[in-house]
Amino acid sequence: MEAPGRIALREFDVPDPEPGVVVIAIHLSGICGTDKHTFRGESKQYAGTAHERDLEYPLICGHENVGTVVATGGPAFDTNGVQLKEGDRVVPGANVPCGSCYYCLNSYPYYFCQHLQDYGNSLNVGRYPSLFGGWSQYMYLLPRTPIFRVPDNLPDEVAVITEVMAVTHGIDQAIAVLGLQGGSRSGFSVAVLGTGPLGLCHLIKSRMLGAGMVIATDVLPGRLKFADRFGLDLALDASATDAGQRTKAILDATHGRGVDLVLDCSGVPSTFNEALRAVRTGGVVVEAGAFVDMGPVQMNPNSDICARNVAVLGIGGELATEYEPSMRLMAANLDRYPLTSITTHILPMDRAHEAVMLAQSGEAMQVAVDPRLPLTPVPS
Amino acid sequence: MEAPGRIALREFDVPDPEPGVVVIAIHLSGICGTDKHTFRGESKQYAGTAHERDLEYPLICGHENVGTVVATGGPAFDTNGVQLKEGDRVVPGANVPCGSCYYCLNSYPYYFCQHLQDYGNSLNVGRYPSLFGGWSQYMYLLPRTPIFRVPDNLPDEVAVITEVMAVTHGIDQAIAVLGLQGGSRSGFSVAVLGTGPLGLCHLIKSRMLGAGMVIATDVLPGRLKFADRFGLDLALDASATDAGQRTKAILDATHGRGVDLVLDCSGVPSTFNEALRAVRTGGVVVEAGAFVDMGPVQMNPNSDICARNVAVLGIGGELATEYEPSMRLMAANLDRYPLTSITTHILPMDRAHEAVMLAQSGEAMQVAVDPRLPLTPVPS
Amino acid sequence: MEAPGRIALREFDVPDPEPGVVVIAIHLSGICGTDKHTFRGESKQYAGTAHERDLEYPLICGHENVGTVVATGGPAFDTNGVQLKEGDRVVPGANVPCGSCYYCLNSYPYYFCQHLQDYGNSLNVGRYPSLFGGWSQYMYLLPRTPIFRVPDNLPDEVAVITEVMAVTHGIDQAIAVLGLQGGSRSGFSVAVLGTGPLGLCHLIKSRMLGAGMVIATDVLPGRLKFADRFGLDLALDASATDAGQRTKAILDATHGRGVDLVLDCSGVPSTFNEALRAVRTGGVVVEAGAFVDMGPVQMNPNSDICARNVAVLGIGGELATEYEPSMRLMAANLDRYPLTSITTHILPMDRAHEAVMLAQSGEAMQVAVDPRLPLTPVPS
Amino acid sequence: MEAPGRIALREFDVPDPEPGVVVIAIHLSGICGTDKHTFRGESKQYAGTAHERDLEYPLICGHENVGTVVATGGPAFDTNGVQLKEGDRVVPGANVPCGSCYYCLNSYPYYFCQHLQDYGNSLNVGRYPSLFGGWSQYMYLLPRTPIFRVPDNLPDEVAVITEVMAVTHGIDQAIAVLGLQGGSRSGFSVAVLGTGPLGLCHLIKSRMLGAGMVIATDVLPGRLKFADRFGLDLALDASATDAGQRTKAILDATHGRGVDLVLDCSGVPSTFNEALRAVRTGGVVVEAGAFVDMGPVQMNPNSDICARNVAVLGIGGELATEYEPSMRLMAANLDRYPLTSITTHILPMDRAHEAVMLAQSGEAMQVAVDPRLPLTPVPS
Repeated sequence: MEAPGRIALREFDVPDPEPGVVVIAIHLSGICGTDKHTFRGESKQYAGTAHERDLEYPLICGHENVGTVVATGGPAFDTNGVQLKEGDRVVPGANVPCGSCYYCLNSYPYYFCQHLQDYGNSLNVGRYPSLFGGWSQYMYLLPRTPIFRVPDNLPDEVAVITEVMAVTHGIDQAIAVLGLQGGSRSGFSVAVLGTGPLGLCHLIKSRMLGAGMVIATDVLPGRLKFADRFGLDLALDASATDAGQRTKAILDATHGRGVDLVLDCSGVPSTFNEALRAVRTGGVVVEAGAFVDMGPVQMNPNSDICARNVAVLGIGGELATEYEPSMRLMAANLDRYPLTSITTHILPMDRAHEAVMLAQSGEAMQVAVDPRLPLTPVPS
Repeated sequence: MEAPGRIALREFDVPDPEPGVVVIAIHLSGICGTDKHTFRGESKQYAGTAHERDLEYPLICGHENVGTVVATGGPAFDTNGVQLKEGDRVVPGANVPCGSCYYCLNSYPYYFCQHLQDYGNSLNVGRYPSLFGGWSQYMYLLPRTPIFRVPDNLPDEVAVITEVMAVTHGIDQAIAVLGLQGGSRSGFSVAVLGTGPLGLCHLIKSRMLGAGMVIATDVLPGRLKFADRFGLDLALDASATDAGQRTKAILDATHGRGVDLVLDCSGVPSTFNEALRAVRTGGVVVEAGAFVDMGPVQMNPNSDICARNVAVLGIGGELATEYEPSMRLMAANLDRYPLTSITTHILPMDRAHEAVMLAQSGEAMQVAVDPRLPLTPVPS
Repeated sequence: MEAPGRIALREFDVPDPEPGVVVIAIHLSGICGTDKHTFRGESKQYAGTAHERDLEYPLICGHENVGTVVATGGPAFDTNGVQLKEGDRVVPGANVPCGSCYYCLNSYPYYFCQHLQDYGNSLNVGRYPSLFGGWSQYMYLLPRTPIFRVPDNLPDEVAVITEVMAVTHGIDQAIAVLGLQGGSRSGFSVAVLGTGPLGLCHLIKSRMLGAGMVIATDVLPGRLKFADRFGLDLALDASATDAGQRTKAILDATHGRGVDLVLDCSGVPSTFNEALRAVRTGGVVVEAGAFVDMGPVQMNPNSDICARNVAVLGIGGELATEYEPSMRLMAANLDRYPLTSITTHILPMDRAHEAVMLAQSGEAMQVAVDPRLPLTPVPS
Repeated sequence: MEAPGRIALREFDVPDPEPGVVVIAIHLSGICGTDKHTFRGESKQYAGTAHERDLEYPLICGHENVGTVVATGGPAFDTNGVQLKEGDRVVPGANVPCGSCYYCLNSYPYYFCQHLQDYGNSLNVGRYPSLFGGWSQYMYLLPRTPIFRVPDNLPDEVAVITEVMAVTHGIDQAIAVLGLQGGSRSGFSVAVLGTGPLGLCHLIKSRMLGAGMVIATDVLPGRLKFADRFGLDLALDASATDAGQRTKAILDATHGRGVDLVLDCSGVPSTFNEALRAVRTGGVVVEAGAFVDMGPVQMNPNSDICARNVAVLGIGGELATEYEPSMRLMAANLDRYPLTSITTHILPMDRAHEAVMLAQSGEAMQVAVDPRLPLTPVPS
């Protein structure tokens, strides 16, 4: 991506890896919501945190990747402690933690790192050897990048959503919090607000972790229909209802109480209030979609939080410790859920612009670039 | 059950319910492992606890029940706070807590109650009106019995395993404990030792709560085969292997580390040691099958527990708060798992003796009595 | 309290207790923040919940009570399951749950009850025999009221703050949540916003549960000085600083990161934003003071919650399961903390009006009424 | 230590630090239980784990250390991410994790590392530059050793017990587990079995994390007396009572139920059974003292674990994430507990043999070596 709105093909050398580096050949690289922001020039990231920064162009996008090991700079290991060798199929972590800040030294999630570097984002063409994004034939993975082996039976088009699935650890946390004050930790009711790729992964993970009832909302009816392949008890079309109607429908479905768990994955601030209305007394709201600052909302510390004993959990990224378990979980459920259908479009590199458009359009669910596909022939 | 080994049909009056009582007509009543012990005269229960006691015969067995409300003594409510009316299909709690002991007054599991009464066990024919077990046309549910409404789409033959499924809350706890010191709370590996009805329910619950790899052992190859319908990554026939071989197979399947979670559901003390061998450093062993005292085992506090940082969780019964969520969870997964196949045999009341024998034999998985079935015609 | 702003002495009969009832003679009854609202006519309570209601006057205030058992209607038990007898010193629960709604039947906190009745609030003079508040010589405790025995060595003036201390279970929860994603669960840093009686109890509880650094803010410098008796690492006078200065001071004290835990006990909505600024990435905000609706605030789901991975826990009341442990914890720490100094003023019943004024004034910390004190002599 | 039972003074060069290395001058180095085993030639460690090994002599003992930074090989950081400079007072981690095994790569406790190296144990004189133990003027800290800055107000004689205090994270975990099924997470009752330095630290940590009642047992009455400085509700002299009497005394003190939490810190296997007798239904046993294999015990999976719903947590070492919080917690409580009295004896290096004897004798609590003390003058 040369600049906002402008994508071009460029060639770079693939150097021999330095010590600790792993070079992979990319099979698939997903288009993420962040990439869409980058494309639109909304380049302020991690606002309000220690690692707030502006993206610098040009950069090679793509941090949801799956590929094969081509070379390693000395012995390198996957997260099972098994040595990596040429031909191993892997998903690389999307981020590189510094290893020496407070958060790194105290076993916090790697995205808390105060000097975080991320592929396809902060790591750009300005740094040698430039190959730090997945919309490329090769990627150069820096030392301390966690590398996750793909289970043999997991197809590339499922493996490419691993990073997104690894963001859903908020559900694991929400379940832990649910259990802190009575009730049950399984068979719970859940409402997913927004069913793009992130919301869909949350929906699927909820099912796989013991949801008993799943409600979803989206402004795009097509996305709700897609989500229903994974089992919806109630689908609320936000293009045809207002927030009050949706809240009422959710209360009606839950003996007037609200759901145990709301997963706010819309990326739009207004659903945060909807989440607070939809959750029961003592329930949990996971705020997972708001990776980009879209402005404030009004809320009431008394009636929204305190009096109704609501917990809100912000989730700012994916865990390095969840990639490999996520792949195992998906591999174990290939027969039970249509996971292979999630990646709806795979395009060659020279159609990256079209891929980004598709990913924003709502016709598609997960869109990916496959650098091995032949480039589009120039019409003669 | 008149006495150990002797079952007879008897008639009792069904009185009008006193205040707080609910009378139900039984659809199905399961044969539980405890019933098998009762039948064999192994009648010492809850050894070592505040409510250790000897069963008194005669009694009407059956505490895994599903039926319909026939009458209530004044307003009565299900656990959603919805009033019960005639014809409502329900599963009653297997136990009646006293409501005034330390454990009852401090929100502990209801089976911690120091004066616990249980249907088909401590509640026997000596107490008016005798109808305190499910191998009967009607049951007389005392005040403070929790009563759980069955979801419309959940068939009786699945609802009858609700009580067993409600014992599997040890898995929810184990997941919470797994998350206390690193790693992930989903995609975990699990070994289930013993795949009778209790073990099978643990296996299914593991899958439904996010297991990434499931291993099972049993001395009955038929049970392993049955369990495989729910997805086994490794089945270890304990009739054809020794403990060392099984341990080695489990280590080989897990990079030499052992599984994250072992669910000991065999009812035999010796598997406790096998569990401690099969679990990884920092993993969790759930001891759920040992409801009857079958003698001690040797274990080493250093190498089995301390040095390998193992957690052991004893689970002594089912939670009142898990029946309804368990039904919701099963109802939500009817399409994904062959839950309707678990109840393999349904017999009329006069064949209860045969039902107990079947349940012990290994030919069957869950066996139930249906008091609505016509009695076996006497050969003329 | 006859009406907002008007308090009068009245006489009522003390009837023989009905079955399940316990009558106590009051030693001390505290003035709570809620009482102050009631006095000011701000009588809308639990806004937005299933049990939102308007208080009805007249009522006898006082739900923070300690007294002695005078009579029981049949056998009654404390929460250790020990039978109560005349002369036993007890603290009664401030609320009476219905026992038959969803929340009551599923082991949720008793204040989640959908038909909650509370002493000194919803239970008023309109209901026979009127004696439902602690600003009275006797109280008539309804069946299902949990009753907690006072440890022998715990003086009345400490026992009277038990209910407030039982609200601080948000800290126990916050510690559990802290431990869900790295770092440590002890030695944590904490900021308490607002150090009235509720904030002070939170501060003390933090210390007693393992705080390593405690920061406090208040608009009343006298309260900060009082709080410092329990150990402050940093006291921020909100009457002499603005929010930005306080945030900066907190960041400066914590390597620029913010504290692990913020306890918002001010009762003023604006501190909610301050809390979100003061907490570190991955930290926890407990919102415990907002029992009355004081209007909304603006917040940003992205930068306040999601990007910084913040958890917010609303705490809507005290747990029945925390009264007795709170008393044991205070009894065990009488030598280590000046707990006996917290109740700064004890007045006779006829000076209740003055007591309410004092409690609002900031000269006092905890203020209590002692109905055994002689009434103020009428000047002749 | 040249060989079991033989200690000698030797001189080594202190080389300039290689990249990532930190050299410190030792102030104090504690005598640990492990050192006593090493001295007795009981050199088999971590039996049953991936890093079981035999110690090799000679080695420099001492892994409980406090000292000052003398030199660093390039920039080095404490665990707050603050750069270390000459003169900084620090406690070094006792272990060095490999950074590339499964446990290291998945945020598990650092002592789970499959290739763990530990100062004063596996790191011996055979490896250049030999200075890997604290009974020495200087220590050479390898890269990846976590280094913890000592709070200014924490004296050396308290800082030297940091490593032991960091083992007590089992209590934090036990509290989390207690809260998983009802009751309260504070004001709990606890029994500490064995009150040597490890047991004493557990006792103190229990107090600092909210214990409401503390019971202790030891075979050495002097140690119980010492422990009582930190507040004992019941002291049980194991030299004058049998296990049955102690169990009865504990039940009598807890309404016949047993304690919420047992901390088994004796190092003797037999107390494991005592722990299982002393804990209440649903309580937690922490097994923390059995670092050396002292043989098996008999236990009953039914009555000891399953029927009484007991949880057992093995704790195999100290967390890197607990050193710094432990120091903050102790620093915050210097006025409330006589922490400075715990280190009862400080000896010069040439009296290390005597120090080991003292530490085994029971006259002492924590014993430390101070390499800055003048050597004992040779009698002329």
